[in-house]
Amino acid sequence: MGEFPDSQYPERPIHDHTCVIGAGLSGLAVAGTLRARDLPVTVLERSNGIGGLWRHPDPAEPGPAYPSLHLNTSAKITGYPDFPMPDHFPRYPRHDQVASYLQRYADHKGVTEHVELGVEVVSLVRETDSTWLVTTRDRNGVHRRRRFGHVVVATGHHWSPRLPAIPGDETFPGRRLHSFDYSGPAPHAGRRVVVIGFGNSAADLSVELSRVAAETTVVQRRGVHVVPKTMLGIPIDEIASAPWWARLAFPEQRRLIETLLRIMRGRLTDYGLAEPDHRVFGGALTISDELLSRINHGSLVVKPAVRRIVNSTLHFADGTATDADDLLYCTGYRIEFPFLPSEWVFEPGGRIALFQRVVSLAVPDLYFTGLIRPFGAITRLVREQAEWIADLVEGVAELPSPAAMRREVAAHLKAAHARYGPSAADSVQVDFGTYLAALVKQRRTSVLTTRRG
Amino acid sequence: MGEFPDSQYPERPIHDHTCVIGAGLSGLAVAGTLRARDLPVTVLERSNGIGGLWRHPDPAEPGPAYPSLHLNTSAKITGYPDFPMPDHFPRYPRHDQVASYLQRYADHKGVTEHVELGVEVVSLVRETDSTWLVTTRDRNGVHRRRRFGHVVVATGHHWSPRLPAIPGDETFPGRRLHSFDYSGPAPHAGRRVVVIGFGNSAADLSVELSRVAAETTVVQRRGVHVVPKTMLGIPIDEIASAPWWARLAFPEQRRLIETLLRIMRGRLTDYGLAEPDHRVFGGALTISDELLSRINHGSLVVKPAVRRIVNSTLHFADGTATDADDLLYCTGYRIEFPFLPSEWVFEPGGRIALFQRVVSLAVPDLYFTGLIRPFGAITRLVREQAEWIADLVEGVAELPSPAAMRREVAAHLKAAHARYGPSAADSVQVDFGTYLAALVKQRRTSVLTTRRG
Repeated sequence: MGEFPDSQYPERPIHDHTCVIGAGLSGLAVAGTLRARDLPVTVLERSNGIGGLWRHPDPAEPGPAYPSLHLNTSAKITGYPDFPMPDHFPRYPRHDQVASYLQRYADHKGVTEHVELGVEVVSLVRETDSTWLVTTRDRNGVHRRRRFGHVVVATGHHWSPRLPAIPGDETFPGRRLHSFDYSGPAPHAGRRVVVIGFGNSAADLSVELSRVAAETTVVQRRGVHVVPKTMLGIPIDEIASAPWWARLAFPEQRRLIETLLRIMRGRLTDYGLAEPDHRVFGGALTISDELLSRINHGSLVVKPAVRRIVNSTLHFADGTATDADDLLYCTGYRIEFPFLPSEWVFEPGGRIALFQRVVSLAVPDLYFTGLIRPFGAITRLVREQAEWIADLVEGVAELPSPAAMRREVAAHLKAAHARYGPSAADSVQVDFGTYLAALVKQRRTSVLTTRRG
Repeated sequence: MGEFPDSQYPERPIHDHTCVIGAGLSGLAVAGTLRARDLPVTVLERSNGIGGLWRHPDPAEPGPAYPSLHLNTSAKITGYPDFPMPDHFPRYPRHDQVASYLQRYADHKGVTEHVELGVEVVSLVRETDSTWLVTTRDRNGVHRRRRFGHVVVATGHHWSPRLPAIPGDETFPGRRLHSFDYSGPAPHAGRRVVVIGFGNSAADLSVELSRVAAETTVVQRRGVHVVPKTMLGIPIDEIASAPWWARLAFPEQRRLIETLLRIMRGRLTDYGLAEPDHRVFGGALTISDELLSRINHGSLVVKPAVRRIVNSTLHFADGTATDADDLLYCTGYRIEFPFLPSEWVFEPGGRIALFQRVVSLAVPDLYFTGLIRPFGAITRLVREQAEWIADLVEGVAELPSPAAMRREVAAHLKAAHARYGPSAADSVQVDFGTYLAALVKQRRTSVLTTRRG
């Protein structure tokens, strides 16, 4: 107990040593950036491998990466700019290709040797000497405490399944599972499957199930914009990060995408879907190349919200009913940090309240990375977060006053409310270009002309 | 031997009785039209059911309808105008839905009772008394002859698999099969499959195999336009039959589709595909909603022509090679009529040479229906062919002079050559609106003001 940081940085004081929690795309970006500046870092990873949500080594191990999961963003834009994905990768690599790429990135950046696998963080405590006391538990249940100067939380938001209660669901005699526990379509072959949800996982899995199930029904509680992965032959994340896109005003961007969608797929009501109650970029998008086509082929039946379940029968909001053998909840994930007090991250209403989506307002030297859901690819944004975090860790930049940080958060949440409504989930939504520009500007204005200390 | 037509039309002379060969969509349209005019008809169908290529009752029975086959044209436009497909059908019904619809159409039109199943036509002979002697063979091998006044050939062009020879293919140790013999993806699970061809079947089956095979390669010998099933949310066959489409000149139609394709999918080279050496409508289209997406996901590898096969190894025109376990030939079908002399249908070069794609130039009272491949749905065109054939059978219309018919055929083949090149297969290609207008005009000009005889 009370051990000191790893002995590999003997000359460094604890205050320089950063603990990164999570070895996924975001945590590795931060650790790689710190290592490139020769700053000490320890990455604590709960699972048995590097790669975060993309890692899925064993079909029996639950996780967000179902076997058919591919990137929704292009290899070109999703790879780290200083370590591109290999040329032989397809435009949209599969999850195992992404995981092996992340492993190679960690090797390349000298991060791998600083990753501890099978180590879960149990608690974070801010000590009076301005260090962080990090308590961990390893695979054998052994607890350990150590101190760090900085903590970067990179645990992602795809590991705590959200399972909404539906009246009567306890009477359902069949299988109920969340996409987190989904291991492929085979167990559902020849069965009547109802997929609850209409986001990216629901789109992927209902399409996949529709090829083997006896009947596949997908439940759409709310209208949502369904967007293909490419437009004009260009991956949509490449569009979102293109200079010409950034030069368009937001209303022009929205009008362009709406026009392209109208040309590519017509109206959503052409497919029996609900029209969204918001315009494009007014809420999360559902990205799918195949969903609408499967509906056109009668392979997927779309239903509105489930009002109640009576044994095997699901009763929908439109008064229709269907019998089901399996219920697959593609209802997303809760954003949770069980090892720290929620007020370090969230405002009382449950929305994320971090300065520039990165810095805790409540405690010093605590950062979050990857806690964003961009319209576009996340990597470039996370890289910019990482550089800024490294600036702060290194002491070459400083934060504005607490009041100024609170004002920025309030303005962000107000804008999010105006655009998306009161949904807590949408507080992580960011526009690629706007957010990147804000981070770049933040870094520029916060850099100190002379180094501290 | 030498029997007379069925006794159910005892008052009718043989000259009024029509033999329709084939109980698919086209043959049923003709038979239904004749029955609506109370003209005697007998439909001879080689297989054990009504429905033509859409019928596939037993997975072990070979046929052009693989289990996942759906209409490429919409239910709305593909249904007979006077007997629409039911409202609960999806936009693109599956083959078994189409087959059951065709059976119900046959019942509704009073055709079913005139269909003889399991009866194959062996030969057609034109008798000196201006009747047709039709020799058939039934399931038990029993031959029978009977006489008719008219013969309508509706045997389609999807039953004689084309299997191009590839140097060294005899050394290939794995499975080689044609799409005609394909019974579903399961036998290919976990194997390395190479699909030869890039038409509609190749697109459907390579996409399907890519979900279960260890590796799926699709061989594209020649650039072809890949087109989704819907544009602007509208099935492309609905576009092709819309009044606004018919008002556009051909260059405008082509430019519109090319512009929409550019918006929807970019350039084909964006997917590593060959650009076609012709513009849209300058050759058969490949219709697929999923092919390009599967390529983007690395699930399908595209290769140029196979130069030679050496045991399990396929050597491609670009110098690369791949090993395969299974070869699936999606190389289409030969147009054949084994029961009649080829010069009744074809010109010496192998191209179809029928007046208005319907009437034999060589012998009287012999018609062909459905021997077209439209850009758009076939049904409306076949219905118009059927009405015209019924006019001719009934004697309310007459044909122009042999010289005039030869001139029309020569002009058609010249135009086809200018547009598609010398390919024999393209002599069945027609534009929906242009061909429909030609048939309507033909019917109008050939109607006799007073009935014959």
